[in-house]
Amino acid sequence: MSSSKFGFKLIKLDGKARQGIMQTRHGAVLTPAFMPVATQGSVKSLSPTELTEVGAHIILSNAYHLYLRPGIDLIEDIGGLHNFMNWKGPILTDSGGYQVFSLGSLIDLNDEGVTFRSHIDGTRHLFTPENSISYQERLGVDIAMCLDQLVASNKGKELVKNAMQRTHKWAERCKTAHSSSQQALFGIVQGGVSKTLREQSAQFITNLEFDGYAIGGLAVGETKSDMYKIIDYMDNLLPRTTPRYLMGVGSPEDIVHSVMRGVDLFDCVLPTRVARNGALFTQTGRVDIMAPKYKRWFKPLEEDCVCYTCQNFTVAYIHHLFKSRELLAPRLATIHNLKFIMGLMKNIRSHIAEGTFQSYSQDFLGKYTPTNETSRLFHKNRLSPI
Amino acid sequence: MSSSKFGFKLIKLDGKARQGIMQTRHGAVLTPAFMPVATQGSVKSLSPTELTEVGAHIILSNAYHLYLRPGIDLIEDIGGLHNFMNWKGPILTDSGGYQVFSLGSLIDLNDEGVTFRSHIDGTRHLFTPENSISYQERLGVDIAMCLDQLVASNKGKELVKNAMQRTHKWAERCKTAHSSSQQALFGIVQGGVSKTLREQSAQFITNLEFDGYAIGGLAVGETKSDMYKIIDYMDNLLPRTTPRYLMGVGSPEDIVHSVMRGVDLFDCVLPTRVARNGALFTQTGRVDIMAPKYKRWFKPLEEDCVCYTCQNFTVAYIHHLFKSRELLAPRLATIHNLKFIMGLMKNIRSHIAEGTFQSYSQDFLGKYTPTNETSRLFHKNRLSPI
Repeated sequence: MSSSKFGFKLIKLDGKARQGIMQTRHGAVLTPAFMPVATQGSVKSLSPTELTEVGAHIILSNAYHLYLRPGIDLIEDIGGLHNFMNWKGPILTDSGGYQVFSLGSLIDLNDEGVTFRSHIDGTRHLFTPENSISYQERLGVDIAMCLDQLVASNKGKELVKNAMQRTHKWAERCKTAHSSSQQALFGIVQGGVSKTLREQSAQFITNLEFDGYAIGGLAVGETKSDMYKIIDYMDNLLPRTTPRYLMGVGSPEDIVHSVMRGVDLFDCVLPTRVARNGALFTQTGRVDIMAPKYKRWFKPLEEDCVCYTCQNFTVAYIHHLFKSRELLAPRLATIHNLKFIMGLMKNIRSHIAEGTFQSYSQDFLGKYTPTNETSRLFHKNRLSPI
Repeated sequence: MSSSKFGFKLIKLDGKARQGIMQTRHGAVLTPAFMPVATQGSVKSLSPTELTEVGAHIILSNAYHLYLRPGIDLIEDIGGLHNFMNWKGPILTDSGGYQVFSLGSLIDLNDEGVTFRSHIDGTRHLFTPENSISYQERLGVDIAMCLDQLVASNKGKELVKNAMQRTHKWAERCKTAHSSSQQALFGIVQGGVSKTLREQSAQFITNLEFDGYAIGGLAVGETKSDMYKIIDYMDNLLPRTTPRYLMGVGSPEDIVHSVMRGVDLFDCVLPTRVARNGALFTQTGRVDIMAPKYKRWFKPLEEDCVCYTCQNFTVAYIHHLFKSRELLAPRLATIHNLKFIMGLMKNIRSHIAEGTFQSYSQDFLGKYTPTNETSRLFHKNRLSPI
C-alpha cells in the first residue's frame, strides 16, 4: 500500500542535480538531504535537541539492531520509535539486510529469508521480507526499506546476479506485505557495477511502484570511478518523480559527486564515526584533531563555522579533550561534523535552486582534499569504542 | 595576600546549618553549595551550557591533572582555565596533594615537597607549596587550595600527626607564596579523627588567616560516625565569618549531615561517577537503571524532576542506552544526578533561610535510603572507562 502521507516534489533540476521536497508524516524534508545514523535509537553522543540544532531533518535507524535490543514489542508498546527516542522528525529504517551481512553473523540465506546469529547473545533469528516489513511498520517509522540481499561488488557477476534476483523476489513480497498507509516503502535496486544488471533491476523494481528507490550494493568495495559511473547510469533508469536514496554514502566529496548524478538522499556513519575518532571536517578536508600541531591552536577549528563547538571552544581544548579521553570530545566533534555535512547539504540545495550547482561543486571539490587511505582506515577505528 | 575580589557573608544560621553568600571574581555563590568536579577541565560528558542548566554555580578542577596535561603554560597562554574550558562561573582548584597520594604515584615525600611519577607518561615531577600555588595562580582560578599532606585516618595517630605538622609548615609557605590579589586561598585543617589534633590544626591554620578553611583528611576510610563527629567538632574551631569546605564529600545523606554540622562547600566525583555507571538518584535512594525492572518503565525516573533527562526521556530509553553502551547514556544520567544534587542544595538553602532546616533534613533522611556497600562498590566501578 502506498502511503497517503508521503509525497515527493521535484522543484528544480540543474544538470542532473535535483532539488526537491519530501513530505512525510513527521514533516517535510528538503532534498538533497543527509540522514544522520541512529543505529540503536541514538545518534551517538547527541541529544535530539542537538540533532535539531545541527540541522538534521530526517534520521536513519536500524530495524536489525532495534529488533535485537530493546525489541520491536517494547518500542511498539511505548508508542513507536519516535516516542522511544523522543525524535519528532521523520525516521527511515534500514531493513536489517546490510547488518546481517556486514556483521558476519549470517547462518543461512535462502529464498525464504536470512537466518543469523545475534551479535549480542548468539541466539538464532530469521528475517524474511514479511517480518522485516512488519517490524518496520510496528516501529512506526516514516519510511521503511525492503529487505534486500547485498553482495560486495567484487564477488563476481554470477553472485551479484543471483543476489539481485533474490532481491527482486523479496521486493515483491515486501510490497505485498506492506499494509501501513502511514508509512512509505522504498524499493532497492541491486546489480553491482554491471550496467546490464542495474538496468534489469531498475526496471523490475520500478515496475513494482514504490514510494522511492534506493541504489543498493554500492560503496561496498568497488572503485570510486565505478561507483560514480553506476550512479550516473541510474539517473535515467529511475523515475524523476520519486526520491532516490544512495545507501551508505558518504564522504563530503562522494555526496557532491552523487548529487551531481541525481541522488536525493544519503545516510552514512562516516561523519559521526570519524568524529568520535578525532577526524573533523574542514572546507579543505578532514583534519586529525589529535595531531601535535593542534595542541596550541588557540582558535576555533573554522572561524566562520556556526556550530556549537566552533562557537564555544578552541581547537586546543578539543585536542586536550581527545588526548584525555573525555566524553565531551566525541560529542563536540560529532556536532561539528554533522553541522558541516548539514551546511554542505544546505549549500547544495540553494545552489541547485539558483542553477549554480555546477560551479559550486567544482569550487567545493577544488578546495576539499579527500582523505587518503591511511587516514581513512586510521580514523575509522582509532579510539573505538568511544 | 588576601583577595580583594573575594568575600563571604553569613546570612542565616539555623542550628549549626549556615546559609551564606560567597563572592568571587567570577560571580556569587549561594551556600551551602556543591561543586561538580571537572578533573581534567571538563565535567565528564557535559557542556558548560548543561552545567549552567543543572544549576552549577561553581566547579572544581584539579591542578595536578592540568599541570600534567595540557600543562600550566598552555592554559596560562590561552588566558586561564575559564577561557580554556569556556566556563564563566567561579572555579576552585585542588592543589594536587590528594591525587599524588590517591593515584599511588608517590615517589618521595619530604619537607620540601612531594615527588611523584606522572600517571600519563611516567616522568618525575616535584610539587612544592610554592609551585603548587604558582600553578593555581597561573590557571587564573577564583579559589586556590594549599598543598597538604593526606593520610588515611586509620593509619595511626603518629602518622596523622606528622602529616598534620607538615601540612602546617606547607600552609605557611603557601600563604607566603600566594601573591595574587585576584584569587582567594583556602587553608586545610588536618588531624584525622583525633579531636586534639583537629583542635591544634584548626588553631594553627586559622591563625594564618586564609580566605576560607577546608576540612581535609575525612571521607578517607574512617567510619561515618567518626566523620560526622569530627565535622561537628570543627564547627566551633573554625571562624564563623569564612566559608568551610568539606573536601571530597559526597553522597546526598552526607551532604545533609554535614550542612547540619556547619559546612558550606562540598565537592565530590560521586554524583557524576556513579551516573556514568548507571546509578541514578531518586528521593528514596539511588537506583540501578540497568536492573531488569527498568526495561519496560515507560515513565520518567521522577515525574516531578525538572532535569532535561526526566523531561524528555523514559527510564526504558535510558535503560536501553546503558545496555547498548550508547554515549548518550552517561550524559543523561549525569544531568539527572547533578540536577538532583543542585536541587538538594537549593532546598537546603531555602529551608535554612526559613529556619526549617531541621525538619527538612529529618524528612529527607527519613525518605532517602543510603546506598549499601555492595551497590556502592559496584557503581563506583562497573562500566569504567565510560
